[in-house]
Amino acid sequence: MDFYKKFIVNPDKKADVREIDTSRTFGWDDREKIAARLAGNVRIMQELQYKIYAENRQSLLIVLQAMDAGGKDGTINNVLWTLNPQGCRCRSFKVPSTLEASHDFLWRIHKEVPGRGEVVIFNRSHYESVLVERVHEMCPRKILEKRYRAINSFEKVLASNGTAIVKFFLHISREEQLKRFGERLDDPRKHWKISESDYKEREYWDDYMAAFNDALNRCSTKYAPWFIIPADNKLFRNLAVSEILVKTMRKMDPQMPEAHIDAAEIRRLYHRAANGNPA
Amino acid sequence: MDFYKKFIVNPDKKADVREIDTSRTFGWDDREKIAARLAGNVRIMQELQYKIYAENRQSLLIVLQAMDAGGKDGTINNVLWTLNPQGCRCRSFKVPSTLEASHDFLWRIHKEVPGRGEVVIFNRSHYESVLVERVHEMCPRKILEKRYRAINSFEKVLASNGTAIVKFFLHISREEQLKRFGERLDDPRKHWKISESDYKEREYWDDYMAAFNDALNRCSTKYAPWFIIPADNKLFRNLAVSEILVKTMRKMDPQMPEAHIDAAEIRRLYHRAANGNPA
Repeated sequence: MDFYKKFIVNPDKKADVREIDTSRTFGWDDREKIAARLAGNVRIMQELQYKIYAENRQSLLIVLQAMDAGGKDGTINNVLWTLNPQGCRCRSFKVPSTLEASHDFLWRIHKEVPGRGEVVIFNRSHYESVLVERVHEMCPRKILEKRYRAINSFEKVLASNGTAIVKFFLHISREEQLKRFGERLDDPRKHWKISESDYKEREYWDDYMAAFNDALNRCSTKYAPWFIIPADNKLFRNLAVSEILVKTMRKMDPQMPEAHIDAAEIRRLYHRAANGNPA
Repeated sequence: MDFYKKFIVNPDKKADVREIDTSRTFGWDDREKIAARLAGNVRIMQELQYKIYAENRQSLLIVLQAMDAGGKDGTINNVLWTLNPQGCRCRSFKVPSTLEASHDFLWRIHKEVPGRGEVVIFNRSHYESVLVERVHEMCPRKILEKRYRAINSFEKVLASNGTAIVKFFLHISREEQLKRFGERLDDPRKHWKISESDYKEREYWDDYMAAFNDALNRCSTKYAPWFIIPADNKLFRNLAVSEILVKTMRKMDPQMPEAHIDAAEIRRLYHRAANGNPA
């Protein structure tokens, strides 16, 4: 299966997150088969990350969005963890600080985008400004319209500067969310993650789905595509994310840089030093 | 063996890097034994990092310094890689940019120190300002004196704010460096890392060792100790770094935070939602 084609939000065709069966695994039900495939993908990603880092020309931005308990942390802990921290950063965007809130909605985001050779993971992102702020009517419709356009323009600037952008909506059902909240309740080590507001946000589920629909359809572009990942099944979710990342990084086609040395000259220096002469 | 005590630069006792046998392994010569011990340390570090992250009160700063080919990258790739990128950042300090150079020597450093709950790895650091800048006489002796004091004061501010600081000098011999340069020459994938200047810096070996001696002796403090790791043997170096990190993180003694929820109330919300009532 071509995960990339299967889950991309086609810029020319409307997608509706409400029509997607979040529990589907497309025949990928054998844990060991998935684990083996994932391990292979991880090796490919590590190899490609090394080349992106060495090449020092392009960069990769990975955006994760999901409802609470949708698996953003899990995807980082199980897939993205494998990337080398030299050249890979992870940035969470929580409720804006006073300083952040005193600027435009892209200010705090722009500061954190990847530089050349870097991979950056956004755990939540600028899309919060057209999701939570829309659902809670913190942003008038007219400004919202401007934000979609501003996001596309912003991402185009990044893409033109050599940043590959890939955006994942980890899509779980309302029932799956409740199940995961229940599991957190059963695990004292996870109690600190729970807040009452999680339950309050559940009441806005349909509004969130409508907000995701607009964000995904209006901001899935050739240069910064959205992917909707059926994410009730964690193993399948991990596999799907890794498959799409492998394809994205392969498209970047990073090249080991030419050595900027005269190998013969270096060899001469080396042998001089090895023979005890000062070098 | 207590690696922490063995390799710490005692604030009250002069250390001399020139007197240290960089090839010693203190009886740790069995690859499998080292690998098993390292794997155990990694699990402990991961568990403690999770707690530091959840606790969200303290932070950890790991400084790596070494001569070229001394193993900074290798230590990151083989030991520190295992930390969760959510809550762990790696920052390399190269030749200062124009903007960086237009500020004091701690400006670019201060911006990157860990916030609460974070682990940050410095691949090179503010110590470059008392190493390379001293060796190449870019910094007069009088200013150098001020810098040592400024560093101690700066690190004290961080420590007072809840940052544990641990600084590693990965110490290789001049011969070991040459051997590693030779290995890079033999591996085309590593050619992009080689520059002629590596060989030029070798000529200043003794000056560097004198500079390290002063930096380590003057800036090893109770709140920010230096460790000199015999690093000719990569496996032993990895093990030693992991042992000292485990001890440092244990001393931090991070605690899982109290859940800021009323578990009974959450359970009520959960059961109401599970029974099909809107919640």
